[in-house]
Amino acid sequence: MSRSPGRKQENHKISRELFVLTYGALVAQLCKDYEKDEDVNACLDKMGYSIGIRLIDDFLARSAVKKCRSYSETADMIAQVAFKMYLGVTLSVSCSSATGNEFSLILDKNPLVDFVEELPAERASLCYCNLLCGVIRGALEMVNLPAEVTFLQDRLKGDAVTEIGITFLRKPEDRKHRRN
Amino acid sequence: MSRSPGRKQENHKISRELFVLTYGALVAQLCKDYEKDEDVNACLDKMGYSIGIRLIDDFLARSAVKKCRSYSETADMIAQVAFKMYLGVTLSVSCSSATGNEFSLILDKNPLVDFVEELPAERASLCYCNLLCGVIRGALEMVNLPAEVTFLQDRLKGDAVTEIGITFLRKPEDRKHRRN
Repeated sequence: MSRSPGRKQENHKISRELFVLTYGALVAQLCKDYEKDEDVNACLDKMGYSIGIRLIDDFLARSAVKKCRSYSETADMIAQVAFKMYLGVTLSVSCSSATGNEFSLILDKNPLVDFVEELPAERASLCYCNLLCGVIRGALEMVNLPAEVTFLQDRLKGDAVTEIGITFLRKPEDRKHRRN
Repeated sequence: MSRSPGRKQENHKISRELFVLTYGALVAQLCKDYEKDEDVNACLDKMGYSIGIRLIDDFLARSAVKKCRSYSETADMIAQVAFKMYLGVTLSVSCSSATGNEFSLILDKNPLVDFVEELPAERASLCYCNLLCGVIRGALEMVNLPAEVTFLQDRLKGDAVTEIGITFLRKPEDRKHRRN
């Protein structure tokens, strides 16, 4: 007996649960590999960076977005389009500096921690989702927007919300100068 | 300035690319951790098993499937419903034994290897996607169907197709006896 697979296939969408559990396995493995939380965090960030520099092409191709004209537009693009495309959620954005190069992205619901209740006591400094920061950093760097990306708050650590901070490293004026 | 996230959210679907690249990071990390391919394969299988025993509840709840009445139905369920739900692809199924407890699942397209061209020469024995075998094994065990699950062929290793073999460890007769 033999049966053929269905014709129509969803090419780009998969179930989140498998991803979330696989990500959990990755973090658990790194916790076995590295004693210090800081080393796990750095490793997740580095892995994320490698993913981000590859994912950006996929993002630009599939989103067909035009060039962002400001840091504010870029932060919106990450929060509203990129997170929606890759994790199925949208984030709130607020600008957190007078210089206009620091942004705060708030995750009402963090899909990566569906199966995680809280961090173990001995892993209090772990940034469980630090891969995401690396992904954002890597993707931004590939479009010539170097940035620092870190978790500022994390519900897993008892904070009221989960918040990712993005600081674009060139001042807005630098960008204008470069264009002229 | 502050913007609210959109109302409607896709709860269960995410983009495959992020998962595929994250899985790649996991395999790469294990290749750093373990010199022997066999150890990497065993670790992926073990991780998959842990995922499978958690994923089965999600699968049963979301698929609302009725109890499978034969190994053949179970193999179909994995190939047509579970793979579709979690990886967005369906597989072909064939029964590969006269005793009716061995099945072959053929992946025309393996979504997990989108970004992998071929295995490095020094990793010739790596079962890159071995996590999937563990997931199937773990999920089956939770519905009281112990099985051996292994890759029989793999396009990454130059085979014509990618084939997962499932051998249910109880003979069909054993199951009938248990019911009576």
